[in-house]
Amino acid sequence: MSKKLNIGLFGFGVVGQGLYDIIKTKNLNLEIVKIAIKNPEKERTLPKELFTTDRDEILNNPEINTVVELINDTDAAFEIVSRALSSGKNVVSASKKMIATYLDELIELQHKHGTSLLYEGAVCGSIPIIRNLEEYYDNELLHSISGIFNGSSNYILSKGFIEGLDYNSALKQAQDLGFAETDPTMDVGGYDAKYKLIIAAAHAYGVVIDPEDVLNIGIQNLGAKDLQYAREKNLKIKLVPVAKELDDRHVSLFVLPKFVNESEFLYNVEYEYNGVTVQAAFADQQFFFGKGAGGHPTGSAVLSDIAALRYNYAYEYKKAKGLTNLQFTNNVEINIYLRYEDEALVELLEFDHIQERFYSGDYKFVIGKINLQNLIEHADAIANGKAFIAFADQLTGVTLASAKKYEAAI
Amino acid sequence: MSKKLNIGLFGFGVVGQGLYDIIKTKNLNLEIVKIAIKNPEKERTLPKELFTTDRDEILNNPEINTVVELINDTDAAFEIVSRALSSGKNVVSASKKMIATYLDELIELQHKHGTSLLYEGAVCGSIPIIRNLEEYYDNELLHSISGIFNGSSNYILSKGFIEGLDYNSALKQAQDLGFAETDPTMDVGGYDAKYKLIIAAAHAYGVVIDPEDVLNIGIQNLGAKDLQYAREKNLKIKLVPVAKELDDRHVSLFVLPKFVNESEFLYNVEYEYNGVTVQAAFADQQFFFGKGAGGHPTGSAVLSDIAALRYNYAYEYKKAKGLTNLQFTNNVEINIYLRYEDEALVELLEFDHIQERFYSGDYKFVIGKINLQNLIEHADAIANGKAFIAFADQLTGVTLASAKKYEAAI
Repeated sequence: MSKKLNIGLFGFGVVGQGLYDIIKTKNLNLEIVKIAIKNPEKERTLPKELFTTDRDEILNNPEINTVVELINDTDAAFEIVSRALSSGKNVVSASKKMIATYLDELIELQHKHGTSLLYEGAVCGSIPIIRNLEEYYDNELLHSISGIFNGSSNYILSKGFIEGLDYNSALKQAQDLGFAETDPTMDVGGYDAKYKLIIAAAHAYGVVIDPEDVLNIGIQNLGAKDLQYAREKNLKIKLVPVAKELDDRHVSLFVLPKFVNESEFLYNVEYEYNGVTVQAAFADQQFFFGKGAGGHPTGSAVLSDIAALRYNYAYEYKKAKGLTNLQFTNNVEINIYLRYEDEALVELLEFDHIQERFYSGDYKFVIGKINLQNLIEHADAIANGKAFIAFADQLTGVTLASAKKYEAAI
Repeated sequence: MSKKLNIGLFGFGVVGQGLYDIIKTKNLNLEIVKIAIKNPEKERTLPKELFTTDRDEILNNPEINTVVELINDTDAAFEIVSRALSSGKNVVSASKKMIATYLDELIELQHKHGTSLLYEGAVCGSIPIIRNLEEYYDNELLHSISGIFNGSSNYILSKGFIEGLDYNSALKQAQDLGFAETDPTMDVGGYDAKYKLIIAAAHAYGVVIDPEDVLNIGIQNLGAKDLQYAREKNLKIKLVPVAKELDDRHVSLFVLPKFVNESEFLYNVEYEYNGVTVQAAFADQQFFFGKGAGGHPTGSAVLSDIAALRYNYAYEYKKAKGLTNLQFTNNVEINIYLRYEDEALVELLEFDHIQERFYSGDYKFVIGKINLQNLIEHADAIANGKAFIAFADQLTGVTLASAKKYEAAI
């Protein structure tokens, strides 16, 4: 029934090894024929002849019908994946940045060459969100998708809220444990969450959006006062990517820290776990929870994709092919909390409406309505000004701004 | 790409109407050709010629290639579904009792006639658990599946815990709102949850189990003292179906009320919502949450199945076809809380080990280890004795009993 897969694996880091661990416990109709690695000097647990440093040994081998790409280099990953797809090989990838950045090209390549690219492992590790968006919600009107998509930043936030650590100590612990990179910007800056959001939005809304167009503000400027503010109100702060359909023509995407209350499922998603909330017209609220990263959880998602390739499964991008008139826009009004040092920043951001303003010694904040476009324009000023911003509302509060502003914004 | 579906619909109750509502907002390649109903006198919102009381008008119509079965009569449902599958029609059904009862036959019929029966709507309404077990966890070792599978009983429990209502008042409210039937035994007695559990276990473990062999104890005997006990310990009581792999040869299934603590996701699943917890070897803990019942949530699951039939999707029962040596057993040790009136019941149940014993006026309970088989044998005595039983442990505490007892139990 299923076809035999001869796999060429690129990368043998934590996910590659996790995948190998899982595969060896199974009796599946597949074989890892060759593993391409960067560093031939590194000690390996497997026979030496399995490894190569020459990618062509996989890409030019006609017996290899499946490529599993698990490397960290975005450009190299794109080259490998596009060459594989173009030469009739199906591909499983977990490179979120690469996929989000080149999604248009990757869809086109699959279409042109009749090959399949699957990437469940790229979005929220073990949570089968892409498969569900593609297969299960394919006829659903989705009001919004949001969640906790990045385990490293969530780990740091949990350390802050549960264990009382400040941002820098929590980051240090996360780095020591391997939950965060030496340069943590991808994680704590919301980039990683943004790439995952963009991939999810392609399947949810049929829109392919350039990552450069989507705001991501992270948790780097989180301070003790922000933690205290949240605690006093029985809230937690989470780094939350949001994709929301504003009306039948507009969809908005952004990544911001968000105040989350006890009644929200995300409130209980702690440490390296991920959670995805889907608000659908008919299915109503749905929530998926699981481990967002790590060799075995991500490895299991990758294996699930590999197994699906045995049955020639391919994403159909049904919503993208459908009648969607949805356009991406940043001309959106949202309610934010801004803790700032310099009053000039408040002026610069041009709040449409300020609901709360607090000033006491070194703690100053405003809560008010702002156009997302203004945040994008002044993201550097916010970052450099050591200001902390958080989304301070429910998703229902995210609305399309007036037509006039919209025209100015596009 | 997709084939046109001409649908014959059986039943036009809340789910059938929900389905109709959803379909009319879409431009799908499908048409509801005929709707078979029981009562021709009932006022309908659709043209009269769409309806029939003669099932043959659908089953004998060669132009109808798809049957959607949403009726309440188990035997009639089985007859309709088996006739449809035998005559080349694919079927979507939401009849959990019928599916759980006749699963072996239904698998055989699909196999023999090359037809497909899908039933996502039968298990936890909008939560795509069957599809995920079948497609996504198909190569995963699943330690356990549990959750809240029945919205009516959960509604009653939430009324008790959140609003302080006693069991009878909560049941009355649930009935008034249409969340529970006039005879609520199916829901509050754990039968409905059991059927769903059996269906899920078939996809998770490849075992097809007779519902008669599986213990279900419900919440009918829940009393004020039990609520108080749970509250004092910061626990909630939920009606929880459990399927657990005990070792590589044995799987156990049961439905019992369970004490749930704050750190468990099920703790926050309230009212008519459902939640499913999957513990997998590699993917680790996963949780799915969504509306468990209602016309639109269940209708959306049914529609998702219908949409999948356009692409000739069929369950492959991969685990059942695989190498599984798993056998169902009730020879299992579990820890339970028993609130009782008559001391004789404690003797009868033959606890292997009693950890706690409490006696004060009219409130008496024991907590101890017991063999599941003993609970099954004395389920009537428990029910009639107004005793309340709850599973008082984590799933890790469910273990295979000794070999000697096992032999005696089968």
